[in-house]
Amino acid sequence: MNKDSYLRAGERLDDLQRNGLFIIQDPKGFCFGMDAVLLSGFAAERMGSGRDRLLDLCTGNGIIALLLSAKTDVSHIVGMEIQHEVAERAERSVEMNALGARIDILTCDIKMAADAVSAASFDAVTVNPPYFKKGHGITNPKDAKTVARHEISCTLEDILETAAYALKEGGSFYMVHKPQRLTDIICGMRRARLEPKVLKPVYPRISSEPSMILIEGRKGGNAEIRMEKPLIIYGEDGKYTEEMYTIYGY
Amino acid sequence: MNKDSYLRAGERLDDLQRNGLFIIQDPKGFCFGMDAVLLSGFAAERMGSGRDRLLDLCTGNGIIALLLSAKTDVSHIVGMEIQHEVAERAERSVEMNALGARIDILTCDIKMAADAVSAASFDAVTVNPPYFKKGHGITNPKDAKTVARHEISCTLEDILETAAYALKEGGSFYMVHKPQRLTDIICGMRRARLEPKVLKPVYPRISSEPSMILIEGRKGGNAEIRMEKPLIIYGEDGKYTEEMYTIYGY
Repeated sequence: MNKDSYLRAGERLDDLQRNGLFIIQDPKGFCFGMDAVLLSGFAAERMGSGRDRLLDLCTGNGIIALLLSAKTDVSHIVGMEIQHEVAERAERSVEMNALGARIDILTCDIKMAADAVSAASFDAVTVNPPYFKKGHGITNPKDAKTVARHEISCTLEDILETAAYALKEGGSFYMVHKPQRLTDIICGMRRARLEPKVLKPVYPRISSEPSMILIEGRKGGNAEIRMEKPLIIYGEDGKYTEEMYTIYGY
Repeated sequence: MNKDSYLRAGERLDDLQRNGLFIIQDPKGFCFGMDAVLLSGFAAERMGSGRDRLLDLCTGNGIIALLLSAKTDVSHIVGMEIQHEVAERAERSVEMNALGARIDILTCDIKMAADAVSAASFDAVTVNPPYFKKGHGITNPKDAKTVARHEISCTLEDILETAAYALKEGGSFYMVHKPQRLTDIICGMRRARLEPKVLKPVYPRISSEPSMILIEGRKGGNAEIRMEKPLIIYGEDGKYTEEMYTIYGY
């Protein structure tokens, strides 16, 4: 079937430059960014092989689920998304890429995850969550982009609680987030028994503050974290650094 | 009086390359390292002016107290040290530098700080604490170097509790520590109401993991932390970076 036949009015098809994968996006909605690509690279590098089941929370258009189907040998990936229209688009991307046997998209509020998935049934959880606290600047709380960016439908605590519920003991948690939430993230992870194990700050340039952090936790892990060498996006020549090219798979 | 007259057998005099200051050290004991210099630079840069009273916990040979007397205009500095012999040496360094009017060294267990200093009476607290948890590898728990490096006489929790006790509301806390303790540090600071505000990782080289972290907290501060641009010690030419030269004051 022609890929274009999966598209609805206003949507576009983007080439993921990886295993021939494409993704359906709505340019007026929330489109994936570099953070999703970095998270998939970070998780894939660390997950190793032999992981059976992965849960991607706040999966949105399914970008993390799609990329990890290409970057890992995980046999089953579940993407969970609260917004019906967004989940339906992710579902069409999965079908279009003929990944229906490996990826399931569930339309589900993560606070109700216990109704949809079993406790302690996943080896790994990934999440590229809404970064910003619910604030007064929000004009349209039903807008898909606002829900993707602000803690309207779920908070950081909801995410950590659901991840801890879904993970097997010793299972891995991977998240991308903003540095200014680091204290909330680290304290929240320890409270949820997702002990922080690796922290990797992402610097746009060697002379700038980090714009993102990548963090790995282990359910029931011991109290020691490793800070990794910095991931720097742009070199002094203004081009991607070698590490970035590796992550993007060029 | 001649500086050498302050020395006891086996001790040596080291030039701090700052305001003509010298420090007495025992080469067989714990001598200050780069971490103390970086902490003094980090604290001095952020403290601004108009701070009246500073408390330096685990002051050791008094290095932080001496450097901050030169790098800031703080009018009164109290250095607290549990080891009698070490505190006495710090006291001689203070006298030798004619800083007796600005620096007081107290021989005191920080867990008993309430007997020595008043609650909420300091604008800032600095600490270069023992980094390592009490472990089985320790052969001589009375050795001065072991006490300086391992949590034998005080734990991270003791330090944070004492700092929170001594600081005024809104007062600043500055610590240097090891990255692998980051979770303990951040969760402990929040628990003690020393909310983390700035985190600065220190990388030996741009391509290496951080060897130290510098952290600032504010007593009663709000929940938002800033991660700073990386401090890199050695450039690609193997020499100190410009930022390091600035901190060392060359």
